[in-house]
Amino acid sequence: SSSSKILIKGGTVVNAHHQEIADVYVEDGIIVAVQSNLKVGDDVVVLDATGKYVMPGGIDPHTHLDMEFMGTQTIDDFFSGQAAALAGGTTMHIDFVIPVNGSLTAGLELYKQKAQKSCMDYGFHMAVTKWDEVVSREMDLMVKEEGINSFKFFMAYKGSFMINDELLIEGFKKCKSLGALPMVHAENGDAVFEGQKRMIELGITGPEGHALSRPPLLEGEATSRAIRLARFVNTPLYVVHVMSIDAMEEVAKARKSGQRVIGEAVVSGLILNDSVLWDPDFSIAAKYVMSPPIREAGHGKALQGALSSGVLQLVGTDHCTFNSAQKAFGIDDFRKIPNGVNGLEERMHLVWDTMVESGQMSVSDYVRITSTECAKIFNIYPKKGAILPGSDADIIILNPNASFTISAELHHYRTDTNVYEGVTGKGKVEVTIAGGKIVWQNGELKAFPGSGKYVEMPPFSYVFDGIEKADSSYLSSLKAPVKRFRSST
Amino acid sequence: SSSSKILIKGGTVVNAHHQEIADVYVEDGIIVAVQSNLKVGDDVVVLDATGKYVMPGGIDPHTHLDMEFMGTQTIDDFFSGQAAALAGGTTMHIDFVIPVNGSLTAGLELYKQKAQKSCMDYGFHMAVTKWDEVVSREMDLMVKEEGINSFKFFMAYKGSFMINDELLIEGFKKCKSLGALPMVHAENGDAVFEGQKRMIELGITGPEGHALSRPPLLEGEATSRAIRLARFVNTPLYVVHVMSIDAMEEVAKARKSGQRVIGEAVVSGLILNDSVLWDPDFSIAAKYVMSPPIREAGHGKALQGALSSGVLQLVGTDHCTFNSAQKAFGIDDFRKIPNGVNGLEERMHLVWDTMVESGQMSVSDYVRITSTECAKIFNIYPKKGAILPGSDADIIILNPNASFTISAELHHYRTDTNVYEGVTGKGKVEVTIAGGKIVWQNGELKAFPGSGKYVEMPPFSYVFDGIEKADSSYLSSLKAPVKRFRSST
Amino acid sequence: SSSSKILIKGGTVVNAHHQEIADVYVEDGIIVAVQSNLKVGDDVVVLDATGKYVMPGGIDPHTHLDMEFMGTQTIDDFFSGQAAALAGGTTMHIDFVIPVNGSLTAGLELYKQKAQKSCMDYGFHMAVTKWDEVVSREMDLMVKEEGINSFKFFMAYKGSFMINDELLIEGFKKCKSLGALPMVHAENGDAVFEGQKRMIELGITGPEGHALSRPPLLEGEATSRAIRLARFVNTPLYVVHVMSIDAMEEVAKARKSGQRVIGEAVVSGLILNDSVLWDPDFSIAAKYVMSPPIREAGHGKALQGALSSGVLQLVGTDHCTFNSAQKAFGIDDFRKIPNGVNGLEERMHLVWDTMVESGQMSVSDYVRITSTECAKIFNIYPKKGAILPGSDADIIILNPNASFTISAELHHYRTDTNVYEGVTGKGKVEVTIAGGKIVWQNGELKAFPGSGKYVEMPPFSYVFDGIEKADSSYLSSLKAPVKRFRSST
Amino acid sequence: SSSSKILIKGGTVVNAHHQEIADVYVEDGIIVAVQSNLKVGDDVVVLDATGKYVMPGGIDPHTHLDMEFMGTQTIDDFFSGQAAALAGGTTMHIDFVIPVNGSLTAGLELYKQKAQKSCMDYGFHMAVTKWDEVVSREMDLMVKEEGINSFKFFMAYKGSFMINDELLIEGFKKCKSLGALPMVHAENGDAVFEGQKRMIELGITGPEGHALSRPPLLEGEATSRAIRLARFVNTPLYVVHVMSIDAMEEVAKARKSGQRVIGEAVVSGLILNDSVLWDPDFSIAAKYVMSPPIREAGHGKALQGALSSGVLQLVGTDHCTFNSAQKAFGIDDFRKIPNGVNGLEERMHLVWDTMVESGQMSVSDYVRITSTECAKIFNIYPKKGAILPGSDADIIILNPNASFTISAELHHYRTDTNVYEGVTGKGKVEVTIAGGKIVWQNGELKAFPGSGKYVEMPPFSYVFDGIEKADSSYLSSLKAPVKRFRSST
Ligand SMILES: [Zn+2]
Ligand SMILES: [Zn+2]
Ligand SMILES: [Zn+2]
Ligand SMILES: [Zn+2]
Ligand SMILES: [Zn+2]
Ligand SMILES: [Zn+2]
Ligand SMILES: [Zn+2]
Ligand SMILES: [Zn+2]
Repeated sequence: SSSSKILIKGGTVVNAHHQEIADVYVEDGIIVAVQSNLKVGDDVVVLDATGKYVMPGGIDPHTHLDMEFMGTQTIDDFFSGQAAALAGGTTMHIDFVIPVNGSLTAGLELYKQKAQKSCMDYGFHMAVTKWDEVVSREMDLMVKEEGINSFKFFMAYKGSFMINDELLIEGFKKCKSLGALPMVHAENGDAVFEGQKRMIELGITGPEGHALSRPPLLEGEATSRAIRLARFVNTPLYVVHVMSIDAMEEVAKARKSGQRVIGEAVVSGLILNDSVLWDPDFSIAAKYVMSPPIREAGHGKALQGALSSGVLQLVGTDHCTFNSAQKAFGIDDFRKIPNGVNGLEERMHLVWDTMVESGQMSVSDYVRITSTECAKIFNIYPKKGAILPGSDADIIILNPNASFTISAELHHYRTDTNVYEGVTGKGKVEVTIAGGKIVWQNGELKAFPGSGKYVEMPPFSYVFDGIEKADSSYLSSLKAPVKRFRSST
Repeated sequence: SSSSKILIKGGTVVNAHHQEIADVYVEDGIIVAVQSNLKVGDDVVVLDATGKYVMPGGIDPHTHLDMEFMGTQTIDDFFSGQAAALAGGTTMHIDFVIPVNGSLTAGLELYKQKAQKSCMDYGFHMAVTKWDEVVSREMDLMVKEEGINSFKFFMAYKGSFMINDELLIEGFKKCKSLGALPMVHAENGDAVFEGQKRMIELGITGPEGHALSRPPLLEGEATSRAIRLARFVNTPLYVVHVMSIDAMEEVAKARKSGQRVIGEAVVSGLILNDSVLWDPDFSIAAKYVMSPPIREAGHGKALQGALSSGVLQLVGTDHCTFNSAQKAFGIDDFRKIPNGVNGLEERMHLVWDTMVESGQMSVSDYVRITSTECAKIFNIYPKKGAILPGSDADIIILNPNASFTISAELHHYRTDTNVYEGVTGKGKVEVTIAGGKIVWQNGELKAFPGSGKYVEMPPFSYVFDGIEKADSSYLSSLKAPVKRFRSST
Repeated sequence: SSSSKILIKGGTVVNAHHQEIADVYVEDGIIVAVQSNLKVGDDVVVLDATGKYVMPGGIDPHTHLDMEFMGTQTIDDFFSGQAAALAGGTTMHIDFVIPVNGSLTAGLELYKQKAQKSCMDYGFHMAVTKWDEVVSREMDLMVKEEGINSFKFFMAYKGSFMINDELLIEGFKKCKSLGALPMVHAENGDAVFEGQKRMIELGITGPEGHALSRPPLLEGEATSRAIRLARFVNTPLYVVHVMSIDAMEEVAKARKSGQRVIGEAVVSGLILNDSVLWDPDFSIAAKYVMSPPIREAGHGKALQGALSSGVLQLVGTDHCTFNSAQKAFGIDDFRKIPNGVNGLEERMHLVWDTMVESGQMSVSDYVRITSTECAKIFNIYPKKGAILPGSDADIIILNPNASFTISAELHHYRTDTNVYEGVTGKGKVEVTIAGGKIVWQNGELKAFPGSGKYVEMPPFSYVFDGIEKADSSYLSSLKAPVKRFRSST
Repeated sequence: SSSSKILIKGGTVVNAHHQEIADVYVEDGIIVAVQSNLKVGDDVVVLDATGKYVMPGGIDPHTHLDMEFMGTQTIDDFFSGQAAALAGGTTMHIDFVIPVNGSLTAGLELYKQKAQKSCMDYGFHMAVTKWDEVVSREMDLMVKEEGINSFKFFMAYKGSFMINDELLIEGFKKCKSLGALPMVHAENGDAVFEGQKRMIELGITGPEGHALSRPPLLEGEATSRAIRLARFVNTPLYVVHVMSIDAMEEVAKARKSGQRVIGEAVVSGLILNDSVLWDPDFSIAAKYVMSPPIREAGHGKALQGALSSGVLQLVGTDHCTFNSAQKAFGIDDFRKIPNGVNGLEERMHLVWDTMVESGQMSVSDYVRITSTECAKIFNIYPKKGAILPGSDADIIILNPNASFTISAELHHYRTDTNVYEGVTGKGKVEVTIAGGKIVWQNGELKAFPGSGKYVEMPPFSYVFDGIEKADSSYLSSLKAPVKRFRSST
């Protein structure tokens, strides 16, 4: 049918490694050609991209759709969340499978169900929340048979997800042996627990108590710990949602020494500051509650700098939405406010405006941090993350001269609020093509449940290159065991 | 009798805050006068100190005499260790009481017994190796009735002394409330355990395996963690035996921000390097096994720099001696080599030679790091750590032009080896006066069991000054709790 | 006469090295005794200090009284400035002699004249603004015959005071050879010049242009440069007015490595922030113009932290006052606003409130940073900076429960404005004794021109201890010259 | 003819952005196709690359061929140096034009002459050694008409190339306006001069004096200065030959904050250490004399870490060769030893062995640091630095299982020594194709004078992206000029 052939004419085609003015021709969901002056037949839909950027669709490495959490369920499911994503120029995301009673297999089954209504492509990370032989064997299975190549460990959420250092080390070793990337949520959970008690004892029960109970130093601590343990094991490490200067400095220090640490920024951490948590209106303050918390002004600007120079490598959202009624569970106790903010729909626009429009980053780098680097880290490049012949036809057309406005009224989520309410900026995603179909154009969204596909992600992505050789180099550097005698004294 | 009155004439009297040429007059164990041209009667022993330094006797903040450890007992007891100390110019030490089955009270009783044969003054730190209500109450008792004002927590020694972050936080809070100083042995015990397994699996069973199993990054990690948790609790913190650049950098970073962290160097860490652990003679290599391990060349020099500028505040020894037969318990497995090195007798000489003779430090600063700062931190200044009227007559006379030589043959310990075997240097303690008696002179030692006294150390030393005000400042800075309403959405 | 004998009863006597409750007895300008329960005769003035702190009078290391600068003259001279100082608890200052046409001798003559009306003790630093053989010989003279032991070099003020790196190195070498301390005003003068042009070209001619033309990075740059050149020469270095995180970090880094760098905070840098320079009222904004400029919020807090832990060692003021009419010279061009703020009278109060009352610092440390450390650095301790028998009777009594208020109406300067207008705080200097006389009591000031004395400052203060030995250690570490042959190739 | 068509079959084709097994087809000097299973005619030379890496030819960003320097001439000219390069897998270099008596135009003319004998492609940087209106206009010309897009400033070589900060700022501004990249040789020339005098005075006249006279801190200083001045001007900056931890840390700090600083490693700095300068054989020691000097062990390893994580971006050589007779000019005075080492031929092999074979870096990253990043920075990508259809056919085939050995006997330079004499390693460039011709195969070199082409490099490479927007953002952030009134006081 007509919609399976598309020609995008005259745009600036931007890959992470290069940009050029060229036409892009798509057929049956695949990019067939990227060239100047392509000639095509009449059955081809032609989109004029003159003066606009033609870029790989965004990939969000960090979302929580349809997740049970804190006694409730995130309100955006695999359809509503993904539909919103498409409207914002994101064409793939990687969601976190949460084990069921510690069982990875059961967790995966459940998420497969949830994902059946998908309208865009997706992959899975797997959380690991306890440790035993069964879990270890399930990890094998996930990597070898289920297309999962990353496992997340929580250093916070004491009493639920949190694991201790012993298990973290075991997990890191297992991941390394599988070529799967360990990820950490880095906050010191024991200290957070203490901080929460302290706030309640002080009578600080509102959303500001959330920020005060888990200050940046606790994120810095756990980030430092995870990084050094990863170095000890000699495994690559992925730190999710770097929210503070404290954590970023740890990533920077490790990378400077050559350690393979990946730092993920999230949009809220780049842009917002914690003043909102002091808003006298509970409904407003509560919507900004996420973990690690949004930080004082100054952290965001520093994270932007780190992102622009490659100290942080990519941007996600930690999209994890609840509506006002859910947020109100914590009206008397901030510990009961479901944690999470939106971002899946806004990410591409906000990152453009913050990083490119401000002059902090080139357009190529924008493609890198919103799409390509994620595809490379999770080993699905150049199928994803590139506009190259043979790549999936996940494409956006962004008009740098148009503007965007964000509001709960206009967004495509199910939530009744938006943490970026009223924000405007330059740069507008005017067309989204996902899997070769035009799904977003002229402000119209055409998303169909079931049209999204699961993307298997093979192990041993580039971040594992040379790890084995480095292990050998290390061993041969030890000059051990020493051949010994024993003198009598 | 004649020995109770002493006049030290013509020396350069050095305190941490000032030095001047003066006479020092001692009577009945107390310094009575520090002045020029003192006239005294015939019954006074007169020592000529012209051209020499008259300084407070050394105080070693970190020793383990007569300690049960790793299935054996340190070989120097409260007599032999202290006697050696006196011969080296140290006139007081603070030893670590180890609880008996977790009981602080039982531990203290035992150590009181051990200490009865003391020939010089001493104080106690108390280790905390488990946590419950009983321990918490015992801590009260120790501070309020037993003259103990510091508690040590082990972040390593998994399966024996090690405690986790939750207990560390509880311990820090309790210490703060009592005005007692929390101390940490900072290495990540879980990772050390893993490292030890790894070395054994690699067939590295000798002393070099000790160093390789617990690299500097694990010390850096735990130091970072302890410091940030202390900041979270807002308590002063004392980090024992800073052995690596990694740990020192964490102390430096915290102090730069104004946090009250005390970093203790130890002599072995300042001077030695890990090449000795690769010695093909097990008997030699094994004697250098201590924890954290002696580090690669470069760490010591950096620690010296930090010490000279006040990033580290004082020097101890972690004196913890075993003879060759004991060290040989680990002939087939480095994990069984009793950990510990000597230093109590050598500290004053080696620090002089390394820091003063090299031009890195003034003589006043030498007094500060070997004596005065320790007395201040543990709240016994100016009774100890000063040459002032009213101070205890613990005094040394050091000849900067004489030399010292270290060897197992000459030392006053019970051990059959010395980790500084053959080391020579400038600066010699020619006289030691302890409690107003000349105990070391002309190479002759006069130490008497039972002559040493227990020194009670009151809580709330200077490092606690302002903590309460800082807590108040913090609370009033929070602008919380926020008075709230809730809008309908 | 009666006023020559004073007994201060029952106060907490605080020295940098110790505090205790004691009486202080003064006779003929000298402290005679510090002891409990002193008995004195009827001819003694008795001051009750119960519940109050008895401390060494403040010493301000950095002032500019009666200085020709930017085409005008600072409005406070050696009488008015010092009188104000006494009313604020400062009993000595060290002023900067400015050479006359580069001549040190002529400069000193002029300043001797200016200082004849002194009502409190004072010393001199000497600025060096050009370099030739004459200057070099004059430096000898200053140190050997005139009691000057410090020389200041300007890395900014292009076209007037500024010198280049070649001369800086020469100056450092000369200072080192004399045992005199080199001081630097550290900003990159070439870049400042460029920044000023840029602002004018942008039409930014008001006081905010002052801040914008010389951002913190230019202070960081010059501080980094001066410190490394000092290390290259192996001389101690004193960095005046550390105003930014950028500069402080350089000091911290150097000190951590053991380098002897002294960092001076000034009150304005600790407390104020640059928002005042954006005030729409020129008269207000202009009074805050000083160099380096007052920085963005955040810098001051960081400097406080560094000061509390000894990364910075002392606090001055850079007191350099102009009245409104003088400040108005720059009404159309910020480059013509005479640079300088007040502080001589307020320093002791503001530092107490900011550092002690907030819980960041002990009272002993307060004495150290406001008085003792300065006396030690400039080699006049314990004559100054201590309450010890034999010390000069420069003493303050501070009531921690009383309050202070600052305003131009109440201050004792000649200036018609005050940069701390309206500031209030805890802690009040109720009595000042200078040279053994009560000069400030019950809000009454008794200052007499000519009563202040010049304090000679001998070279080779403690910061030079060991420098020669360190040079020798360095040389013997070089393993050079290598004895060589030359192979044919 | 037959040689104009080449098919490389079955190799792993590696670009910086991706690697895949594919065939590469070349015609008339251009890469025509990169695809699996390409079919070609009989007139095509087929090279089997199975099991080998097919990569872009190396680009060396930093060479000095046929340069007058220190009273002599580098011994490798544009033919001999380039021929050696081809034998080592490098197919392009960028050489530094040295002005003639400050004249850029005259310098360029001279270098055009020198380059006529080129046997591979080359570009030019231009040194700027003085500053006036003529130079400024010549810079315009170089950029707009001569294909030069980078200018180098020397902060060392006092008395010859060195310029001061004022000129550096002017130069940076001019570069920025032209979209040309400023480069700096970063050492403090005044201090180096002082250091040299000092060594001579100490009687240290041999090559070790070279290292001792210009220690790492002088490189750190100048790097810090250049970076901060570049930030002040808001221009990208390229720091050539980062040789020390000190300099690297400055680059890292700047980049972390988002500043656009490019750090160039050179092979000698990565691999060698300064022990060679202490060799008792002058002939050996002298050949390692280059500036900045080769550093103590430890620096190289740290630079490797920084390179692997992108803190440093590319690797050059500073190839600048002299034979033994020339080096012997400095037999009595190290200041007269012509500075420079070889590397143009060895770079690709040594970087492979050090970074890839050791497991520190992926093969893609190897391509990035040896070729692609250089092409991007100097704006000639993807003509150079890529194996893509349309790119120049500059290609190497590297066999990871073969070995290399370096020696003066085997190398293709004119020099009679080699600083890597005797070094062996894994990874061998078996074929080099330059401009579509096989120039190196089976150990046979086919290089023809005049076959190399000048590569024009246009201004405004990617490092300038967004600079203008950043300037605007900065200006609009100033809230200046403030509209003012003036109150009467
Ligand atoms: Zn999380
Ligand atoms: Zn999450
Ligand atoms: Zn220990
Ligand atoms: Zn110990
Ligand atoms: Zn100044
Ligand atoms: Zn000044
Ligand atoms: Zn150079
Ligand atoms: Zn060069």
